[in-house]
Formats: sequence, C-alpha cells, structure tokens
Amino acid sequence: MVLTAVEKAGILVEALPYIKQFYGKIIVVKYGGHAMLNCELKEAVLTDLVLMKYVGMHPVVVHGGGPEINKMLKRLGKESSFVNGLRVTDAETMEIVEMVLGRLNKEIAALINRLGGRAVGLWGKDASLFTAVKRPGVVWSADGIKIEQDIGLVGEITTVNPELLFSVLKQGYIPVVAPIGLGPDGEGYNINADTVAGKIAEALGGDKLIILTDVEGILSNPQDKHSVISKIKVGEIPAFIATGKISGGMIPKLECCRAALEGGVKSAHILDGRVLHAILLEVFTDEGVGTMVVP
Amino acid sequence: MVLTAVEKAGILVEALPYIKQFYGKIIVVKYGGHAMLNCELKEAVLTDLVLMKYVGMHPVVVHGGGPEINKMLKRLGKESSFVNGLRVTDAETMEIVEMVLGRLNKEIAALINRLGGRAVGLWGKDASLFTAVKRPGVVWSADGIKIEQDIGLVGEITTVNPELLFSVLKQGYIPVVAPIGLGPDGEGYNINADTVAGKIAEALGGDKLIILTDVEGILSNPQDKHSVISKIKVGEIPAFIATGKISGGMIPKLECCRAALEGGVKSAHILDGRVLHAILLEVFTDEGVGTMVVP
Amino acid sequence: MVLTAVEKAGILVEALPYIKQFYGKIIVVKYGGHAMLNCELKEAVLTDLVLMKYVGMHPVVVHGGGPEINKMLKRLGKESSFVNGLRVTDAETMEIVEMVLGRLNKEIAALINRLGGRAVGLWGKDASLFTAVKRPGVVWSADGIKIEQDIGLVGEITTVNPELLFSVLKQGYIPVVAPIGLGPDGEGYNINADTVAGKIAEALGGDKLIILTDVEGILSNPQDKHSVISKIKVGEIPAFIATGKISGGMIPKLECCRAALEGGVKSAHILDGRVLHAILLEVFTDEGVGTMVVP
Amino acid sequence: MVLTAVEKAGILVEALPYIKQFYGKIIVVKYGGHAMLNCELKEAVLTDLVLMKYVGMHPVVVHGGGPEINKMLKRLGKESSFVNGLRVTDAETMEIVEMVLGRLNKEIAALINRLGGRAVGLWGKDASLFTAVKRPGVVWSADGIKIEQDIGLVGEITTVNPELLFSVLKQGYIPVVAPIGLGPDGEGYNINADTVAGKIAEALGGDKLIILTDVEGILSNPQDKHSVISKIKVGEIPAFIATGKISGGMIPKLECCRAALEGGVKSAHILDGRVLHAILLEVFTDEGVGTMVVP
Amino acid sequence: MVLTAVEKAGILVEALPYIKQFYGKIIVVKYGGHAMLNCELKEAVLTDLVLMKYVGMHPVVVHGGGPEINKMLKRLGKESSFVNGLRVTDAETMEIVEMVLGRLNKEIAALINRLGGRAVGLWGKDASLFTAVKRPGVVWSADGIKIEQDIGLVGEITTVNPELLFSVLKQGYIPVVAPIGLGPDGEGYNINADTVAGKIAEALGGDKLIILTDVEGILSNPQDKHSVISKIKVGEIPAFIATGKISGGMIPKLECCRAALEGGVKSAHILDGRVLHAILLEVFTDEGVGTMVVP
Amino acid sequence: MVLTAVEKAGILVEALPYIKQFYGKIIVVKYGGHAMLNCELKEAVLTDLVLMKYVGMHPVVVHGGGPEINKMLKRLGKESSFVNGLRVTDAETMEIVEMVLGRLNKEIAALINRLGGRAVGLWGKDASLFTAVKRPGVVWSADGIKIEQDIGLVGEITTVNPELLFSVLKQGYIPVVAPIGLGPDGEGYNINADTVAGKIAEALGGDKLIILTDVEGILSNPQDKHSVISKIKVGEIPAFIATGKISGGMIPKLECCRAALEGGVKSAHILDGRVLHAILLEVFTDEGVGTMVVP
Repeated sequence: MVLTAVEKAGILVEALPYIKQFYGKIIVVKYGGHAMLNCELKEAVLTDLVLMKYVGMHPVVVHGGGPEINKMLKRLGKESSFVNGLRVTDAETMEIVEMVLGRLNKEIAALINRLGGRAVGLWGKDASLFTAVKRPGVVWSADGIKIEQDIGLVGEITTVNPELLFSVLKQGYIPVVAPIGLGPDGEGYNINADTVAGKIAEALGGDKLIILTDVEGILSNPQDKHSVISKIKVGEIPAFIATGKISGGMIPKLECCRAALEGGVKSAHILDGRVLHAILLEVFTDEGVGTMVVP
Repeated sequence: MVLTAVEKAGILVEALPYIKQFYGKIIVVKYGGHAMLNCELKEAVLTDLVLMKYVGMHPVVVHGGGPEINKMLKRLGKESSFVNGLRVTDAETMEIVEMVLGRLNKEIAALINRLGGRAVGLWGKDASLFTAVKRPGVVWSADGIKIEQDIGLVGEITTVNPELLFSVLKQGYIPVVAPIGLGPDGEGYNINADTVAGKIAEALGGDKLIILTDVEGILSNPQDKHSVISKIKVGEIPAFIATGKISGGMIPKLECCRAALEGGVKSAHILDGRVLHAILLEVFTDEGVGTMVVP
Repeated sequence: MVLTAVEKAGILVEALPYIKQFYGKIIVVKYGGHAMLNCELKEAVLTDLVLMKYVGMHPVVVHGGGPEINKMLKRLGKESSFVNGLRVTDAETMEIVEMVLGRLNKEIAALINRLGGRAVGLWGKDASLFTAVKRPGVVWSADGIKIEQDIGLVGEITTVNPELLFSVLKQGYIPVVAPIGLGPDGEGYNINADTVAGKIAEALGGDKLIILTDVEGILSNPQDKHSVISKIKVGEIPAFIATGKISGGMIPKLECCRAALEGGVKSAHILDGRVLHAILLEVFTDEGVGTMVVP
Repeated sequence: MVLTAVEKAGILVEALPYIKQFYGKIIVVKYGGHAMLNCELKEAVLTDLVLMKYVGMHPVVVHGGGPEINKMLKRLGKESSFVNGLRVTDAETMEIVEMVLGRLNKEIAALINRLGGRAVGLWGKDASLFTAVKRPGVVWSADGIKIEQDIGLVGEITTVNPELLFSVLKQGYIPVVAPIGLGPDGEGYNINADTVAGKIAEALGGDKLIILTDVEGILSNPQDKHSVISKIKVGEIPAFIATGKISGGMIPKLECCRAALEGGVKSAHILDGRVLHAILLEVFTDEGVGTMVVP
Repeated sequence: MVLTAVEKAGILVEALPYIKQFYGKIIVVKYGGHAMLNCELKEAVLTDLVLMKYVGMHPVVVHGGGPEINKMLKRLGKESSFVNGLRVTDAETMEIVEMVLGRLNKEIAALINRLGGRAVGLWGKDASLFTAVKRPGVVWSADGIKIEQDIGLVGEITTVNPELLFSVLKQGYIPVVAPIGLGPDGEGYNINADTVAGKIAEALGGDKLIILTDVEGILSNPQDKHSVISKIKVGEIPAFIATGKISGGMIPKLECCRAALEGGVKSAHILDGRVLHAILLEVFTDEGVGTMVVP
Repeated sequence: MVLTAVEKAGILVEALPYIKQFYGKIIVVKYGGHAMLNCELKEAVLTDLVLMKYVGMHPVVVHGGGPEINKMLKRLGKESSFVNGLRVTDAETMEIVEMVLGRLNKEIAALINRLGGRAVGLWGKDASLFTAVKRPGVVWSADGIKIEQDIGLVGEITTVNPELLFSVLKQGYIPVVAPIGLGPDGEGYNINADTVAGKIAEALGGDKLIILTDVEGILSNPQDKHSVISKIKVGEIPAFIATGKISGGMIPKLECCRAALEGGVKSAHILDGRVLHAILLEVFTDEGVGTMVVP
C-alpha cells in the first residue's frame, strides 16, 4: 500500500508525545525467543532500539540464548537433566553457556552497530556488573516435602553495580547484556534473563521494562488468543495468578514485572515479539501489542 | 484511511536515516506566507520544529509578518510608498513594524511552548544578535541610469553575533527570530526575512536552510505548476535566472539560497508552505516537496 | 565642580564593600515611570545596570509601559474603561498592549547593548517564563457587597519558571522582562509590573527588589516630601498601612515588597526614579534615596 | 628470605621514577602463551595490570587464545588445515573461535575485577572498535611463484575507532580486548593478537607496547638462551632479520614492534611471560627481562 | 644485600592493597624532629610524600621548626622565657618565628619539587587558611590555684578554611603548611604544629593523621623501648594517660590524635621519624613502626 | 569636601569603560618603595588590588623588600659589599633575604585577606614557579675591560611555569609573589623584583605591567619634576636612554617595560607609588599619574 506524504507525516507527528514522554528515560528490553531467531524480526527489534537511542531514550538490551545453547550442547553430545524446569548446569555445561552467550552477545552488538547505533556487549563479569550466588533447585517429594537439590551453576543476582552501564549510556552507547553473573570466586552463573532485565531496570531507575515473548500477552482465557489483557495493575497480579487461568510459562514473567514495579520501575510490558516492530509500536504509538503492568 | 500497526512502524523506521543524518545539526527555517496565516498549517509547521528538536536537531525559526504589518498600517491610516518593491519605511512606519513583529514573534514562541517545545523570541536588538545599516533604494531613470533613493529604515545585515543563539540552542531552546536588525544608534532596521534566515544559517554553520513559500517550488516552466525543479546545483543558478523563466518573486529567494551555500550551508530548500508538514516531509522522508539547492 | 584624583579614588573605594556584599547576587529592578520617559534618566538607569553586571552582580529588569500604551490606544481611537483602577482589557486592547510592550522591551535591550552590556528581551511567553490566569475585577456595590467583574485579559501570576532566566544570567546577559504572562491557551495576560518583579525576585532567590517610582519614597507624612521613611520592617507594614497615612498608589507597591520579603528576598527598596543614578547610589554607596523594607 | 622494612621501602622508592615517567600514559600489553595457561603466572600478570592502573597508568590488554581454540576444535572433531602458518578459518571454525575467545575475554575481565581492578571485555564488534577485511593466504609454488589462497575468515585490520577505549579508560576501567575484528557485513574476522595490540597502541597514542612471549627475548644466537639482545633500534631490525639469526616465530613479533614504533608508539618490548611479574619488572624497575625496541 | 627481581616484584605487589585502600584519600603528616634535621631522613620523608601523591593519595604536610627558631633567636641575642612549656612570644620573637618558618616552609616545598612532586608552601595567612586567637599561658600557684598569664603571640586555632587546600590538592599539588595562624588584625600567631595538623586533618575530612616523633611510639613501659603499643583505641586514651605511665611529651600528641579521631579522622599514628621511610612503611606495608590510634 | 550623591555616581560611571576594558585581563603590579613602607599607602595599594579583583580583573603582585633586608642584615652585624649596584649575596645573606622576604610576602597576603580579598603568598620555590641561574657581576677595569665577578646567589630567571598562577587566579585568589627564584639544586636566588614582575606578566600573557616607584615617572628633564613624559612608545626607548637625560635608577625599569612589551604585554606603566591609589587612578580613570609605555 502506498501512503501519501501527509499520512506519513501524521505517523511521525503521532510519535511526538511519546518521544517527549520518554526523553532521557531508561528502557530495559528483554530480548529473546522468535525475535532472536528470525532474521527479519531481529533486524526490526534492533532497529527499534537504534531509533529509540536517536530520539533521546536510553535503551538497554538483555538477551537470552536458550535454543543456541541447546544446539551446541547437542553437538557436543552433552545431555542435560532438569530440576523443576531449571537445567542442572555443571561446570562443563556452564562453559558452553558462556561460550554461546558470549558469542551471541557480541553478534547482537555488531548488528546494532551495522544498523547505525553504537553498542557494547557486557556480562556480569565486566566490572562486576552484576554478581550472583548459587541458587538451589527445588523439588517436592511424593508426600509434599520441599527438597533442595544442587543444580550447579544456576545463580540468582545478589547485587547490580550500575556504574558501568550509566557511564556507557552517557557516552551514547547501547549496552547489550548477557545474563551471566559474576560469582564470588570469579566463576560465572547462569541466570534467568527476564530476572536480569528486571533487576537492571530497577538498579538503573528505569522507566520501562519490556519483555519480548512468543505469545500475544497475558490471556484472560488461555484457550483464546484474542483474550489479551491489555493492562493489569501490579496489585492485581497475585489474585490473577491464583485463578490458575495463566499459563505456567507466563507466571515467572509476570512475577518479574511485579518485582520491577515494586523496585520503582514505572511500567512493565509483556509484548508479542513475533510482531514486527512490537517495541516501537509500544513505545511510539497508541497501539497496544501485549500486556502492560502498571502501578 | 486506517493504517495498520506495521505500516505505522514502517514510517517511523523510514525516518531513522534522516534522524541520524541531521543529529546535532542546525536547520534554519524561514517561516512566512500562508503557513503563518492558516491555523492548521501554523500548528503543523511548529509541531514539525518541536519534533525536530526532540530527535536531536537544532531548528532555528526566522519569521516575517508582512500581512499583519499592512493590516496595522491600514488601521492607523498610514499609507506606504514603494521603491523597487521595498517599502519606504519612515520612523513611524518602523515603529509599527517593530510593534507588529514583536508581538508576532512572542506569539510564535508561545505556540511552540504550548506544543511541547521551549522557544525564545529574539530580535537583532537582543545582545546585538545581528546589526544592520541603512540600505539605499534603487530606481532606474528613463534612460537607464541607476538612482539611489532614501527609503528610510530598510537595512542590510552587517554582522551576525551568533553567541546568544548558540547558548540558547545548547540549553535546549528553539530560537524564534524577528527580522529587525540593530542599527548603529540602537534604532531598528527592517530587513528581508529570507536574508536574515540565510545569514543566520551561515553564521551558525547551519546544515540546511529551508524557505517556506506559497508556491510549489522553482518551476522550469512558470506556467506549469507540475514543472517543479526538484534539485538545482548552486552553480547553475545564474544561468537559470538568465533564462528569464523564473518568476520575479523567486529570484531573491534563489539568490538567498545561493549566498547561503556559498557561505557554507550544506543545502537550501524552497518548500511549498501550503503543504501540511512540508518541513517534516523534507527532513524526515524521501518525499520531495519543493526545490533543493545543492553545492 | 572638578574633583581631584584622590577624591575620585575615594568614591571607588567607598563602593568596594558594596561590591563585595552583592557579588554574585541577583537584584531585580522594576523599571518604570519618569525614569523610562526622560532620556537622561533612562541612560543613567541602564548604565547603572551595566555597571552592576560588570562588577559581578546579576541585575534583572522588569519594565512597565503605561504611558506608551495609552498613547497608542488613543491614536487608534480606542477608549478604556476601568474597574477599581484596573483597565478592562479586551482582546483588541491586549493586542495593543503586547505590541507596545514588545517594542519597548527590545528597545531597552538595545540601549543596554549600546551602553556595553548584553541584554535579552523576554516575556512570559518565552519558554513559559511566567504563566498567568484571569484575574477578576472587584467593585463594591452601594451597600458594600463585593462584586466580581470580568475585566478581560488582566492576569495574575500562577507560576514562574526561572530556568531560562538562570541560563541567561549565567551566560552573562541582563534579562529585560515585559510583564506579559502566558495564559493556559497561549494567550497573553497583562500583569502589574511591580508584581512580576516581586515574583521573579522570589523565584530567582533574589537578594534585592528595587522598585523605581516617581516619588521620594514612603512618606510618614504624605504632605511632607521630606518625611521619607528610610527603613521599615516588613512586620510593621500592615500597621503602617492601617494608619491611613500612606498614599493610595504606594499601598500595592509596599504590599509587593512585603510579599517579596515573605518569599525570601533579603530586602526591597522603593526608590525615587527621578534622581539620577538612584539605583547605583542605593547599591554602591551609603546614600539612601528612598525607603528600604527589611525583614 | 625475610626482607627488612628498609629493604621493602627501598624497592618502593626505586619504583617512583618509573611511576612518574609513565603517569597518565597508555601501555598496551599483548597477553598470551604460558602466562595465560599457568594460574600463578596469570594472577601475576593481571595483578601487575591492576597495580599499573592504580598508580596512574592506563593499561590495555589484548589477549590470544590459540590453545583453548585448538582444544575446542578437537573436542568437536573439527580438523584444521594451515596455509603458510595461518589456520584456514571456515565459518564453522570462526564460530568456535568467537565462542572460545568470547568466554576467555570475560574470564580475564572477571579475574581482574577480583584482583581489585575494574575491567571490561571488548571485541572489534563492540562499537566497531576495530574493523577488518579478509586477508589472503600466500603460498609459493615449486618455481617460486606467489599464489594467493582463500583461507576463510582470517582478517587484517582496516580501521581502529579508539573512542570507546578512551571513554572506558577515562572512567577508570581496564579494557580487555579479544582479537576479533568486525567485518563489513557484521561477521567476525580472526586477527593475529600481536597485530591487534600494535594497531591499538598506535591508535591510542600509546607509550609502550609489551608483547608477552614464551622465550627469553630476541636472541643474538638462537642456540644460546643467554644471548638476549636487551635493546635494539627500530632502524636496525631489517638488517638483523636479514642475518637469518632470528627464529621464525619471532620475526612477525619484531615486525609488529617495528610497525608500532613507526606509528608513534615510544617503545616496544618482547618479554618473557614465563617470568613472574615480568611486566611489573619491566615497567617499575631497572631490571630488563627481554628485548626492548627503541626509536 | 642484592634482591632478586622476583623479590622486588613481591614488595610492589604487597603495596597494592594499601594503594587501593588509600586511593583518593587525604593523609595529613606532621613533619618535625630528627626527620627534619637529618638530610637522609628528610629526603626519605619527602620522597614518601611524592610517592603517595603519584599513587593517588593526597598528602598534606604540616611542619614545625623549633630548633631553627632557637638558633636564630640565639644568634640575635634574644632570650626566651617559658610558661608551662610554652615560649613567651613577644612581637619581636614572633617576627623571628615567622621569618624562620617562612623560609623553612618554602625550602621544604623546593625539595619536594626537586624530588619530582609539586608543592606549595602555605600559612594561616594565605587566604585565611586558619585563624587564631591568643591563648593564655597557665601556671599554678604554690597553693594550686590556676593563674593565667600573658604569653604573647601564642595562639589556638579558631577556624580552618579548607577551600584553598582542596583547590591546591585537586590541581595536583602537595600543600606544605607552616603553623602560623592569622590573627584578627592580620598578625601572626605561633601555634603548636601537632594541633595544626590535627585540625587540618579534621577540616579536610582526612583519612589518616601521621605525627612523626623522635621516639619509638607510645610505650607501655616508658623505661622499655621495646614496649611500643602498636594499637590503642581512642576510648582507652584517657584511662591510659591516667596511669601516668606515659611520658609528658607524648600526652599532648596523644590528645591531639584523640581530638582528630573525634573530629572524624579515621586513624592517627605516632611514628618514629628516625626510621628511614617510616611513613611509607606505615602506609604501604604490613610493617608497624609506631602507635596507631583507632576508633 | 563633601560630594553630592550625583557626583559620587558620576565617578563610578566614569570607571565603567575601564572596568569593561580590563574585564578578565591579567595585570601584574610590582609593589615596592614608599608604598610598602607607609601604612596608609600600603592599605591604599592593596585595596586597589582587591577592588580590581572584585570587578573582574586578575591582579598579580610582585613585591621587593630591600629596606627590611638591610635592617635585618644590620641587626645581625652582617655587612654587604656591592658590585656594580648588585649586592654580593653569600649563602648567609641569602638566608636572611629568604627569611625577610618570606615573612613580608605572607604579611602582604594577610593584609589583602583582611581587606576582603583572598591572597596566596608564593615564591619561585613553590611548584618551580620560576627558576633561576647564577648571574655574574660585571665590573670594568681601569682600561675598560669587562670583568665578571662572582656575586653569589644573585640570579636571573631561566623559566617561568605559570600553571600554578593560572590555577590560583582561576580559583579567585590574588597571587603575591616574592622575587626568590628556584636554583638547579633547590637553592634560592635573589632576583630583581622588577624583572620578576616583567617576566611573569609575559608568561601569563598579561595585559598591563605596573611598576610602582618613588618618583613622578620618567622625566624629560631630570631636574624638573613637572616634566613627566606621560606616554612613550617602546621603539623610542633606546634613543631616549641614549640622550642621557634619564636618571640611572630609571634605566633598568624602562628596559624592563620594554622587555615586557616585546614579550607581548600590552602596556607598561611606571607610576608614582607615593600618590594614594595611584594604581586605581591608572586603571579606573582618565587620570595619568606616571609614564606609560605603549607599543
């Protein structure tokens, strides 16, 4: 479809209030899923970030990398066991995780640079950006007793030292962050990327946390893809989870949004990363493409 | 027509290369004609400027005000004589010019502020922003002899002191400039607004000079409104004027563009101010809506 | 009279403690009355401001313009009615007010620039410097009932945004402010200049408010011009006004001083603007030329 | 051996002239070989860097990683062919190179952070730090004809953009650089780490280039480990190489030193990385532990 | 004894934690006694200060000069009387004190400059660095009644204005301070140098106060030079003094340390200035060479 | 005589053009002679400097101290011999010179501080402010042969390192400089104060050099005190000296002015320091009180 010049102008003008609203604000984007695997989606996401940077916002990217890790483990003939959804990460597995995420991290930076932004790839190991400790795996015995299990180098964040991020943001760069935390002895810990994004948003005093997913958003009826809840108050989340209507995979994401808001982030968004330019539409237009969590 | 989300996103993405290109650049806009009289056009022009400011450009506005001056002179029963197209400006007329432009100048600033920008209304009299000397009127006698005539307080620019503009731009304001120069004894001089815009663009090391007019652009055939020349090299201007194909009113505008380019401005544009968001389309899209003068 | 070199030196040395005392301090001067009409007085006032700036103080000028407005209204055959001393200001009158004050504002700036300072002429419309809302006129019915009347675009200040003034002061400029406030819809409001000066002094954390008048100061006996009260405590003002000894025109000026002191300004001065260099004498010497309000 | 307090003091005092000399200077260290494999040596090298940073120098580390790459390739059953000493690097091999170096890079950063410094791990892909193009492999046919061969993603540096490094250094961080260049399409290129160190030293206006090796230095007699040449002028290098007395592996290192000095670096050093604290001894004491190239 | 390279390196590495600990911290050193008379000790002390400056600490020196003052007084045939240990300082004596200390002060600065630091010699008279008032001498009559006596220009500090010191420190200089305070009429007052050092440490928010003495430290048994108390808590000082075990000359020094700690200084040290590089050993190594007062 | 308020104002206004002219300029004053001995003159000179500082100039004082040195030498029974007008300065004499000037230097600083300025007393020994080498004494034998003689620690300036002065000026202090240069081994050299003033004016890029003397200025007729030459061009000085009309003592002062102008100082002034506020009259009024050397 060919747009007239005036229609084009109208779109740009529609963006103005959003540009004003988020001028100088920090927006943390958890980048993962399809949006990372599909080339067209990938370029769209990263272009959105570059655009945000140019119009005065400060995007920060935190990415995952599960599928690539799986591929590499498979190639090396390494099998994984899981405890309550968390991969048991022995030292050898962790080495693979670091290698795969490390490469991916710089690849994202390179692509942003190619699209006209200036990005720097960082981990928790850089200037102790975020530190972590071992996190126990939890299983329940047949008679409902909680049993902690050693699941290896799976970590949870203890501190975020945002100084390096602030300095990098101030110099005009887009930080690209891999979810590997720095352990007490310099070892790496594998951390959930949603959590890293939330904690960083909190530590930076971020305005928005955006989590890209492979679903339409939070559904009021899990069977109906058109039942997206476009807005939910942070206080309503526990009750909503308690209804059992939410799919299992969404619970931690919603909890992560809740934690971020309780930590001072102004709003959190669970977006459908399969939609082209979902971030841009969320940030620059009146269009809603997912679920927004507000205070 | 309703645009889809993806179409909207496409427009924003199309703007990115232009945002990058003009990031931190100074763009001087001569604002006048219909775009100043029609309310919808006025709001569109000033919105474009606010948008430019937010995405990192530094717009400077120079405005005229002929119709309002005429209205006020008429109301006061004051008649004007003209010498070769220049109004003979006695002290009383000059007082009216200053009053009318002074009010208009702040009205534009107020409107920009209301639209979300922050504007400051300035004249040549502020911090000696631009100084002027008397300019003679020129007529030709029947036998082709050039005769200089006193046409009063019509001036030509002697110096531009851009320090105040730089300081205002750096602090995030949009300067709105009225074309009244400071004379040697503190008196005001009425100066052609196109010229003021050109000289200021030059003094600021501007990237672009945009002149809003009430025509489609420079026409290769003055009788054919569809014959707009979309691009002309500065070196071709004298020859083009010599063809006689250009309408009288356009000659000084084209000369003004030429002077600006010779003074270091990267490009100059004669745009149709009657088109909604003409500036925005020129600066942010591939659409051409007038004539561009390039080196 | 010819002064010896040593006498000259003595005067300069006498100024030193005052220069020290007000170094880096903001001094707001309400400029109006004879000091604005008489050429010699005008040059003296503005020279005083330039001198203050050079020796490290930060003068800010707020000016009125009643006589010039009256002249222009008369010329346009426009008559004014008054409600309790406030001119009923319809849209047409307001247009004249803006035109006249706008011109005057830049004329003062130009004169300061010619005297060696660097001045910038500003209104409430510049960067929303001060905003205003409609103020009702008040009359009393025969039986003493207060009746509010619509007196048009007469305003009272709602907010002062001193950022632009601070930025201009810091860059070495003298701000010259016309008392036109920015209304909610971008329209201008006519505001009492004494009040504007007081509010600006307060918003800037000013050290001194100086109001130039056409009288000797506050007189303890209105019939005796030699009965100037040289100092009055802010707390004594209500009682003094209650004595009825003060002339009607002085009451609002005194109230304005009181408000400024209550807003944190260190001292306020009602000076005789008909005395050459009255400001300079007040600021740089032991001479008192009017009434000083102290905490 | 127990040192007396005075002996300890003497050592610190001996360091003072060196601290003064290199205060604020940039020193680029190519880190590789045994010093990277042996834990004690590793900790000594990185401690030296932290010490340098604290006493006002600006160390920059560039590291290799050959042995780890080989190990990983072997594990994946991937065999390498070589052309004139350069590994033929197909896309799959390059992926391994990026993964291994990426992990190593952050491990070094983490260790520096644990030792009390603050390090940031960077590649050519971060903010286009250094860009590269494909480099041909060269073989000679039996009859001495030079034949260029495609050896895959082996690159040579085209530009270094030191802005990110300067910004990181200025903020107090130690940059740790992996030798992966950014190709024209965002792909990575494997570059010789010595060359990267030399080019970065040059681009940063570095004072010293230090190359850690697994030999005593440049030997005047390759058979005699005690024949280390402690100082050689850059102009003498070609003649020295022509003597054929230098071992093959040292030639490119010496050439790299030569290029750095021709690019403005003040001195270059080939040190024995097997000596504990070799860098520290070179920088802070009168001891020579290798070969120094001087202008 | 000849140290091996590795031993040398070890010493430097041992210093690293101390360098880190005191990075950017202010350390005030009272310099006097033997360390000022013996050439080798003098050079060692000043070298230690230069070294501290280069590795990022901010040393400030306060010096005495008793012996030189005595020598000059003797030479001028001027005799001193004492009241309770304080020299009765008439105007003529004070003139000598100022002359001798003034010369000494710049000599120390010159020597620091020669050793590679950059020092500036300052008194209380510079920019009112520290002001003083007359301090009475106190004697006790036979029957234990306290009698105040006029002992001339002996002063006690009233205020410290650290602005000049902060500015000098920030520019990279080492301030060298003579203990002459500025009296209310511009006259100088002779002040105890320990006290000046303590007050300056306090006013600067110093981290450490170091007092160089001619004894081993505070002894638990005044007859046993090996009974140095290496650490004492500030709260234990009064009780310790009450035991009477401390020699008379040490009491004011210990009191001075106590005052400094109560004023916020982190630790105070009474060091044996007769030990070469005593300061350096204290600051950079694990060696203790005196008594440390801690909170 | 009692001045009216208006007369006072007139003087202040007369100063304005001078304040403007020297705003931000460096003015070096050689302070000595009667103006240093007489209390009233002393206070007047230092008040002038404080006033200059407050109105935006940057005065720097260089002082002598001959009479005080003589007094002290006499008191110590030390006799001086002279070679061609230069005192033979043995080490013992130099010690006295340093003591006397050192005390005087801080006394001047203290007095400036008391008068409301902020002064810092400095020598060549502070941060190597100015360095010196030994200068030979010159005598002529009976038959006109030039003979160099050792006159001890009399020096001539080799370098001026103005960094400390710039830093002190920028922070708002008035530097007070004693003419003692730093010798190669840290020893002091006695240098002519006029020369120090001239060299410092040159090194700072000063605008004016003012030398206070005890005469009316340069006289065209040495016998006639009313024959002061108010202005002389630097190029005319050699010819004027050749006329022999100038008194011996004035020749080096005039040469010193000449050197300063050749080194870039804009003007030099030989003023009569016996006139109250001579500096202030020179800098702030139209009055001439001595001889001005112009380019």
